[in-house]
Amino acid sequence: MLFLSDNAAAVHPAVWDALKAADEPDSPYDGDRWSAALDDRFSQLFGRPCTVLWAGTGTAANCLALATMVPPHGAVVCHEEAHIEMDEGGAPGFYLHGAKLILAEGTGAKLTPEAIRAAVDPIRDDVHQVQPHAISITQPSEYGRVYRPDEIAAIAELARERGLGLHMDGARFGNAVAFLDCAPGDAVGAADALSFGFIKNGGMSAEAIVFFDQELADVARYRRKRAGHLQSKGRFLAAQLHAMLEREVWLDNARHANAAAQEIARACETRLMHPVEANEVFVRCTADERDVLRAQGFGFYDWGADAARFVTAWNTRGADAAALARAIASL
Amino acid sequence: MLFLSDNAAAVHPAVWDALKAADEPDSPYDGDRWSAALDDRFSQLFGRPCTVLWAGTGTAANCLALATMVPPHGAVVCHEEAHIEMDEGGAPGFYLHGAKLILAEGTGAKLTPEAIRAAVDPIRDDVHQVQPHAISITQPSEYGRVYRPDEIAAIAELARERGLGLHMDGARFGNAVAFLDCAPGDAVGAADALSFGFIKNGGMSAEAIVFFDQELADVARYRRKRAGHLQSKGRFLAAQLHAMLEREVWLDNARHANAAAQEIARACETRLMHPVEANEVFVRCTADERDVLRAQGFGFYDWGADAARFVTAWNTRGADAAALARAIASL
Amino acid sequence: MLFLSDNAAAVHPAVWDALKAADEPDSPYDGDRWSAALDDRFSQLFGRPCTVLWAGTGTAANCLALATMVPPHGAVVCHEEAHIEMDEGGAPGFYLHGAKLILAEGTGAKLTPEAIRAAVDPIRDDVHQVQPHAISITQPSEYGRVYRPDEIAAIAELARERGLGLHMDGARFGNAVAFLDCAPGDAVGAADALSFGFIKNGGMSAEAIVFFDQELADVARYRRKRAGHLQSKGRFLAAQLHAMLEREVWLDNARHANAAAQEIARACETRLMHPVEANEVFVRCTADERDVLRAQGFGFYDWGADAARFVTAWNTRGADAAALARAIASL
Amino acid sequence: MLFLSDNAAAVHPAVWDALKAADEPDSPYDGDRWSAALDDRFSQLFGRPCTVLWAGTGTAANCLALATMVPPHGAVVCHEEAHIEMDEGGAPGFYLHGAKLILAEGTGAKLTPEAIRAAVDPIRDDVHQVQPHAISITQPSEYGRVYRPDEIAAIAELARERGLGLHMDGARFGNAVAFLDCAPGDAVGAADALSFGFIKNGGMSAEAIVFFDQELADVARYRRKRAGHLQSKGRFLAAQLHAMLEREVWLDNARHANAAAQEIARACETRLMHPVEANEVFVRCTADERDVLRAQGFGFYDWGADAARFVTAWNTRGADAAALARAIASL
Repeated sequence: MLFLSDNAAAVHPAVWDALKAADEPDSPYDGDRWSAALDDRFSQLFGRPCTVLWAGTGTAANCLALATMVPPHGAVVCHEEAHIEMDEGGAPGFYLHGAKLILAEGTGAKLTPEAIRAAVDPIRDDVHQVQPHAISITQPSEYGRVYRPDEIAAIAELARERGLGLHMDGARFGNAVAFLDCAPGDAVGAADALSFGFIKNGGMSAEAIVFFDQELADVARYRRKRAGHLQSKGRFLAAQLHAMLEREVWLDNARHANAAAQEIARACETRLMHPVEANEVFVRCTADERDVLRAQGFGFYDWGADAARFVTAWNTRGADAAALARAIASL
Repeated sequence: MLFLSDNAAAVHPAVWDALKAADEPDSPYDGDRWSAALDDRFSQLFGRPCTVLWAGTGTAANCLALATMVPPHGAVVCHEEAHIEMDEGGAPGFYLHGAKLILAEGTGAKLTPEAIRAAVDPIRDDVHQVQPHAISITQPSEYGRVYRPDEIAAIAELARERGLGLHMDGARFGNAVAFLDCAPGDAVGAADALSFGFIKNGGMSAEAIVFFDQELADVARYRRKRAGHLQSKGRFLAAQLHAMLEREVWLDNARHANAAAQEIARACETRLMHPVEANEVFVRCTADERDVLRAQGFGFYDWGADAARFVTAWNTRGADAAALARAIASL
Repeated sequence: MLFLSDNAAAVHPAVWDALKAADEPDSPYDGDRWSAALDDRFSQLFGRPCTVLWAGTGTAANCLALATMVPPHGAVVCHEEAHIEMDEGGAPGFYLHGAKLILAEGTGAKLTPEAIRAAVDPIRDDVHQVQPHAISITQPSEYGRVYRPDEIAAIAELARERGLGLHMDGARFGNAVAFLDCAPGDAVGAADALSFGFIKNGGMSAEAIVFFDQELADVARYRRKRAGHLQSKGRFLAAQLHAMLEREVWLDNARHANAAAQEIARACETRLMHPVEANEVFVRCTADERDVLRAQGFGFYDWGADAARFVTAWNTRGADAAALARAIASL
Repeated sequence: MLFLSDNAAAVHPAVWDALKAADEPDSPYDGDRWSAALDDRFSQLFGRPCTVLWAGTGTAANCLALATMVPPHGAVVCHEEAHIEMDEGGAPGFYLHGAKLILAEGTGAKLTPEAIRAAVDPIRDDVHQVQPHAISITQPSEYGRVYRPDEIAAIAELARERGLGLHMDGARFGNAVAFLDCAPGDAVGAADALSFGFIKNGGMSAEAIVFFDQELADVARYRRKRAGHLQSKGRFLAAQLHAMLEREVWLDNARHANAAAQEIARACETRLMHPVEANEVFVRCTADERDVLRAQGFGFYDWGADAARFVTAWNTRGADAAALARAIASL
């Protein structure tokens, strides 16, 4: 009963079907019919024109998106615990050619206009200090917190005022939409680009970089090749994205994972470090308690000395979630 | 009847089987059992210890390998028509942080010690000129020419003398081994790293970077993550590599493609621009002649104004190759 | 009566004399006799062999030094208020090709082994997090605090244990030596490289990068040219460095500046934000009080809302320092 | 009697005077009165508005200018023997973050629209090949050949058509203007940026980057700091530029050097490798002949096995040039 992460979960049957169906001759790279159909498909989903590039990892998606907004001498504002700061092996420094991350604070790893201003306002507008060129927010955040549409709007407004780009890291974007129960477009707001994750949500190896600004996509296209991310059998990535969008697999999967997380959360409300809004549950518990859980066959990561993180996935079995809920309640 | 390229060919059944078999829970990234078994599997193949990292494209494989040998202020010697120079969208400049490619000449897009010396010797050993740190050769070359073991040995000896790393771009390495009919280790010689391609040869999305020097691999590991190439469901890449090595699928596939190319070549010996040693056939023919072939349903690329390139693949049907051979003979 | 900064102070007469004396034919770049004599001159000063490169700015000196210790995928540990983090326009990101700065805390902008460990120990030793490769300390610190030899030794010991390089930003190194009244070698300890500043201390345009490891210097030589910092009339930079070392001009100048700072400090002991150890005085005072001082003709920078920074220089006139001291005392 | 290079020549008395005059308090970096006056001074010289940044080397000037026109995934077209390709230690790769140099051919190291088209037209407009974003020409060229205004206009027209930036490396720009005997604006044509060299022409350590497009300058300002080229006592660089422009010192110096070169050229017309238009004379001569000249006390560089290069400077004595002319004539 693994609650380690959704990032290595099984591949959804619909994705397997689509992969097999794509195993026929077509043009290499992104010249195939599946890749060609992505813009329309995602434009329909978001209710406004967008340009979509596939990429093999969320790290590549994030960095390719940001690199279109931030010059090498610039900076991105992000949360101090953002994935791009903590867990991407310095990829932003590589893709952005040494541009800087400006770290802001915020409860639940979410940014607010106030937090962004607090980070940005002390920066003197001179050449001695690195100037911000974009903001990156994570939806849902590293702690599974979801930005409400008005919160995104407030950040987008600040970005507009300051002339900053706005990027959304949506490695688990589906879980945010499922939680908000809103149109996908409302969960992304006026962001210029979205890293729309599918791998954690049942895909095998394809994420979507969704650009709401055509010019950014034109740059990203060159950068993707230059970064070695233009796979020659790209049809297999595009096909995964189509399979996920078809019949709302992405949304059903996310709903399933969220529901499992809620079941666990309900069992330990007083132990929760963060309200559970997506598919991650951060639970205060002692080392001894963790031993007890592990002895019962539950797999999960320690979160510092006094907590544990449980992540549900699209294929978490109901019985397993229920068992974990019971086990935590019995601690 | 497509002879455009092998880079978008279908995926081999054995690869499909392996992918399905890998769809069970395991650790993310390269922590899974398939990834863990790669070093042994390839060490056995090459008859000496090596460390293997998977990557999703040949461009990434080449650049990650080279980045371990060449500092940002250095240079790589390669053929002026090498893939890294011509067709990787500037990826070496990105991955090597601005290091330079020193271009050398050579028949059939192959380098020789003489050609390398001619390129390198005029470089003054001072800080005003960029100094070479590695040599990159392509096996088989961009024109489908294969380095013989003694040719590699001569280049490796030069590399050793000058203190240069030696990288082999083996996007179609299997075709070279099939042609040479030798042990894989003999086809790679004393190279420090090999980009061993499987995608063109029946894989879906996995290449192997084979390091014969553990220290280089240790650096590449960080660089791979930093480049966004550490896929979270890496087991699906590792499984592809195992499937290809298992029962010599890689070699059978390459032999098949080579044989098809030979059949075509025999039909047009006087038209050949290059001896056919792998799975590419470069044929002198007029625009009118190309029209005739295309009217018969053959797909291929023009090669400049007066030639065409035909590429066979692991799944080229014998009947198609024979038909093309006849068609060319009838021109 | 300017106390804004020492960074635009006049050029010392000995430097002028040396510049004029160097205006005779010699080899370009660093091939001249003055440049050639630097290694010996500084080795003598530090009592151990070193290799010295001149550079036109402290930013270049710092970054060229760090780039020899830190690969693009690595990081440097520095104080969160270090010059390389706050005031070099992102130069470390440029020179280190996207490597990261790991920020540590510490009173008076000084690092301690504990602070370094607190910053470094939480970093997981895996490819997802950027690993430290060097420590950079500033002597004296941004707040004019001086590392004692035993403090440097403790940091150097930690660096050695962890396999990290140790760089010292000595933009005002002379002021530290003057304060410590020790051998220069004791003020630099076991650092691998020192950015030894002369420009703030009476030079015109030359800093010294002192490498205590020959191999690092060999790399820096290439990097300096590549960064456009190898001036063709380099003899004019080398000559400045010789002039400063000759007859201990550098030390006399630093002593003079320190003494002036002490005079000011004595007048406002209760207002001091930091003990005054070099030539910077941070004084708590209200906006009104700053107006009073400015009305008397004193130039200085505000330091946040409630303080002011006064910097003395090699040529601060005793009468001016005394006047400022009186003015502050009278507030 | 040194004819090695002008790059280490003495500093002109007017420059010394200006340096001394600038040794009074002013704002650091480029906040001083001398720096502030540069835009007007150069705008007047060129007869159109321009923004001017000083830099300490021609390499920095070239690369800072190019970095404003070329994204990291792009390329610069230049002559295959251009200084940026041959002699800047890979600085363009550093400053342009891995962008590429596309090498074109051309007599006398000069480019023509035809040569540029020959280099650029074969580049497929797809992401697999690096796309040109700027052209860089050298005025006068590496072989001392001068672009006529109509030649520049033709290249500028091509640049405009293709949407490419145009940069001029004018390390010896004064010599070109002196030769053309035209308005400086006519010698630079419609270039977007000019690296205007003064160091070889009697300066000590200051070149000017002249931007005819304000937006490019705004970017370059950040990049200059980031590259460690924003010297804190920048007034000493600005003052040099003013001194050179004042009373046309730059033009007189260039005329003097050109005249000396002409005197030498007249003595060996049949031996000339290139028409002499600036201050460099390339002379065919045997190793024995070079020995003869060196035995008479002439210093110069070999130019391959069968030639020598003689460079005159602003301070080449007439008697020395005459002596060299006689010596060559007597060979």
